[in-house]
Amino acid sequence: MNGCHESDIETFLKSVFDLVLKEGVTEINDRTKPVINFKTPSELKQILDLAIPAKPASHAQLLEYCEQVFKYSVKTGHPRFFNQLYAGLDPYGFAGQVVTDVLNTSIYTYEVAPVFVLMEKYLLDHVCHLIGYKEGDGTFSPGGSYSNMLGMNLARFHKFPQVSKTGMRALPRIVIFVSKHSHYSNKKNASLLGIGSDDVIAVATDNSGRMDCSDLKQKIEEAEIQGATPFLVIATCGTTVLGAFDPLEKIADICEDKKLWLHVDAAWGGGVLFSSKYRQLCKGIHRSDSVAWNPHKMLMAPLQCCVFVTKHSNKLVKCHSIEVPYLFQQDKTLYSSEYDIGSKVIQCGRKVDVLKLWLMMKAHGSTGLETRINKAFLNAQKLTKLVEVTEGFELVCKPECTNVCFWYIPKRLRSLKWSLDDDNFCRKMAQVPPLIKEGMTQSGSLMVGYQPLDGKPSFFRMVVINDKVTTDDMEFVIKEIDRLGSDL
Amino acid sequence: MNGCHESDIETFLKSVFDLVLKEGVTEINDRTKPVINFKTPSELKQILDLAIPAKPASHAQLLEYCEQVFKYSVKTGHPRFFNQLYAGLDPYGFAGQVVTDVLNTSIYTYEVAPVFVLMEKYLLDHVCHLIGYKEGDGTFSPGGSYSNMLGMNLARFHKFPQVSKTGMRALPRIVIFVSKHSHYSNKKNASLLGIGSDDVIAVATDNSGRMDCSDLKQKIEEAEIQGATPFLVIATCGTTVLGAFDPLEKIADICEDKKLWLHVDAAWGGGVLFSSKYRQLCKGIHRSDSVAWNPHKMLMAPLQCCVFVTKHSNKLVKCHSIEVPYLFQQDKTLYSSEYDIGSKVIQCGRKVDVLKLWLMMKAHGSTGLETRINKAFLNAQKLTKLVEVTEGFELVCKPECTNVCFWYIPKRLRSLKWSLDDDNFCRKMAQVPPLIKEGMTQSGSLMVGYQPLDGKPSFFRMVVINDKVTTDDMEFVIKEIDRLGSDL
Ligand SMILES: Cc1ncc(COP(=O)(O)O)c(C=O)c1O
Ligand SMILES: Cc1ncc(COP(=O)(O)O)c(C=O)c1O
Repeated sequence: MNGCHESDIETFLKSVFDLVLKEGVTEINDRTKPVINFKTPSELKQILDLAIPAKPASHAQLLEYCEQVFKYSVKTGHPRFFNQLYAGLDPYGFAGQVVTDVLNTSIYTYEVAPVFVLMEKYLLDHVCHLIGYKEGDGTFSPGGSYSNMLGMNLARFHKFPQVSKTGMRALPRIVIFVSKHSHYSNKKNASLLGIGSDDVIAVATDNSGRMDCSDLKQKIEEAEIQGATPFLVIATCGTTVLGAFDPLEKIADICEDKKLWLHVDAAWGGGVLFSSKYRQLCKGIHRSDSVAWNPHKMLMAPLQCCVFVTKHSNKLVKCHSIEVPYLFQQDKTLYSSEYDIGSKVIQCGRKVDVLKLWLMMKAHGSTGLETRINKAFLNAQKLTKLVEVTEGFELVCKPECTNVCFWYIPKRLRSLKWSLDDDNFCRKMAQVPPLIKEGMTQSGSLMVGYQPLDGKPSFFRMVVINDKVTTDDMEFVIKEIDRLGSDL
Repeated sequence: MNGCHESDIETFLKSVFDLVLKEGVTEINDRTKPVINFKTPSELKQILDLAIPAKPASHAQLLEYCEQVFKYSVKTGHPRFFNQLYAGLDPYGFAGQVVTDVLNTSIYTYEVAPVFVLMEKYLLDHVCHLIGYKEGDGTFSPGGSYSNMLGMNLARFHKFPQVSKTGMRALPRIVIFVSKHSHYSNKKNASLLGIGSDDVIAVATDNSGRMDCSDLKQKIEEAEIQGATPFLVIATCGTTVLGAFDPLEKIADICEDKKLWLHVDAAWGGGVLFSSKYRQLCKGIHRSDSVAWNPHKMLMAPLQCCVFVTKHSNKLVKCHSIEVPYLFQQDKTLYSSEYDIGSKVIQCGRKVDVLKLWLMMKAHGSTGLETRINKAFLNAQKLTKLVEVTEGFELVCKPECTNVCFWYIPKRLRSLKWSLDDDNFCRKMAQVPPLIKEGMTQSGSLMVGYQPLDGKPSFFRMVVINDKVTTDDMEFVIKEIDRLGSDL
């Protein structure tokens, strides 16, 4: 294969492009095709020929492998894929990704990524502006979890700048406050940072899953009485399961009073900032110290596309920059070292994730992006109404975001008294989603996730994002779940 | 744009594919085309139309934007791009990346990434086997820096499992030993982890840049006398600048004796494991506790492609797993939860990086990959000889890897006495690389990096990777640097 003629390689790539276009773009909206062609791990291991051979495979063989990958992979761009906080395939984002891929560079210096560095700086400014920061800085990152980690790291450094050099040893016990519905990455990050997951204190939520601010105040005071030092509150705009928006203005008041860093995890809900109708869900976000937002979630940019910003213009530099003579030379003659943006982050080599977002934003314009967000909300509202009026469906709570959470009660359980305090009832209810999930997976008709929460039995979490989804699809979801549950 | 007809979108994508093929693949080996068409940041800002508009751009406009991106981006696949520890474009890896992109999923669960999960498990086993681990575990990661961070985190957890919950507070002062030529990510990671960069202790190196083991022993003893607790040694296989391989067998002896975790940063040099001729450079690597290796460096997989493995089969799970009911349900009926590999890492959503590597490995076979590595070494050896015999070129040290480091002495400095102890001489020498770099950047003929090291004046670091590079290119490098330096 090393010796393959260049024209053969071009023919091969053209065949791959044709396959990608057909399977990944043209047919992706075909509702008659399955979302997933499910095989168990042992079945799939039999089918796939994973072993690395001594000799090269032929182009024909490689194309067959690609076809297999398509056959057995989940079609996350399918209009009936609702399983995660991402869905759909934006063709312009995809185009930007392919251009990025063939250019194959790292974004740490202007030297090797001039266009992309300027593009990132521009878009991060744009995001800061959308949030309402007067000034700021930021970076693209390899995950919302990673962005949350940056927020935690900056918050700690902000209060205890000595920590970079001398570590946690010289610090008192420091504590973080998050809603009990906040993302689990905050716990894992606290462990990683040497703070310890025990010092991530869970604050109560109200019936809609929003952080309870009187409990926040109380928990802060309790921590102080114990001799711990609060330093950070993480508010969530769009919680993972319910899609709740923590009350940012009130939380910001408390943080200002107690001099705590306010990090907003808007990984999921940050998309509302593009909609003049729904951006008020994030009201107060400009008062935060930092924000994590994933364009690859509600905005439908291709994975990965995650952004971290802070209003503190110098904080990333002060927290992370060290002398690195081999990469960030200070004697470059052709441009200023501020364009070597790798210096202010922890990553060294970093994949370019900005072009796909930029091209997508150019392709739709801000009006198109607003339409996209509004459509997701409209579909979610339609689904909510259907849940409310259809027998056998019970809303968990009224959605703030485009997560629609509901229980499905099969016919034979509908005679039982609805009581979430009744263990027996809850046990029976908890058995339902795994079985319906099994049914939808094997039929390939639909993909929706489920989970328990706060002791409630497992319920479905329908996540609406993809702008190819219609209100007919919302009706299909109800009908299909009912069909799959009809003989339970 | 939201309302664009699907056939128009397909036409657009086909145009993008054509452009990508032409600019990124067909013409990339054309040595008459520039490696870089350099513009300063202010020039480039004038040229690029970065602003996000209200209204959608036309397909024609979007294609123009893509053309601009190509025009002003660095051609890292060009045979005369030697600037970083990555180079070249593997067309099969690129094909795998495009398939990955259009499938647009996260690899945290078997549920949404069945093929990719099995592929990752398989390849990680393969890597463990190459290293010589009897068993093990691992993950793909978003960077070599990130992989090193995982090694550091596991090492700390291994000795102090309580740290996940209670943080660094309950720990004594813990210290890490690295060679003074080790990658800077180790310092940044120590800061992030709350250990503190002061507690990353730099061990002396020999004249070839390899860790000095008697100094390692001494530094460990000094730390112990001070009451600190050594817990980790990070050895490097292929240092960033010189490409030195730390003596793993001796280091492993010390680590075994002192019960220290041995993490091997083989981000760069790990590629030698694919060559029966050069794998002995990593002799002893099987004795490590963990390894970081970047296939996107020497093996030429598309960025990002980074791997972390550990011989301790349960360590990732024990260190990182927590209960996450919304994502890692324990009541899935269709497969065992061990296939939800996201549970054992810190990342939540994670981009799929395995397909491009797997497809590339299938395309070349292990024999093809061996040929690739051997060719890089052959080219580097040719270049080394040229440096040795050409007037005005002075080798920094004999290379172990495919980094060839040398000074260029312009004619008017050749009469000066060669003395690296002479400040005046060093100052004059240090002025040379930035000017030559400026010249090569503006002519677009070549890209090579430079840096100072250990008080020596800046020298060039030629990194040979791309298998399209020939010995003629090695001669070109010498001639071109000489030409650019002829009137200095
Ligand atoms: C609210 C919230 N924050 C953070 C994350 C983590 O983002 P990522 O999966 O990109 O790491 C998620 C992921 O679902 C999330 O829902
Ligand atoms: C020896 C070594 N280790 C680790 C790294 C970090 O890898 P990455 O840039 O992928 O973070 C590098 C990068 O050049 C390196 O040379």
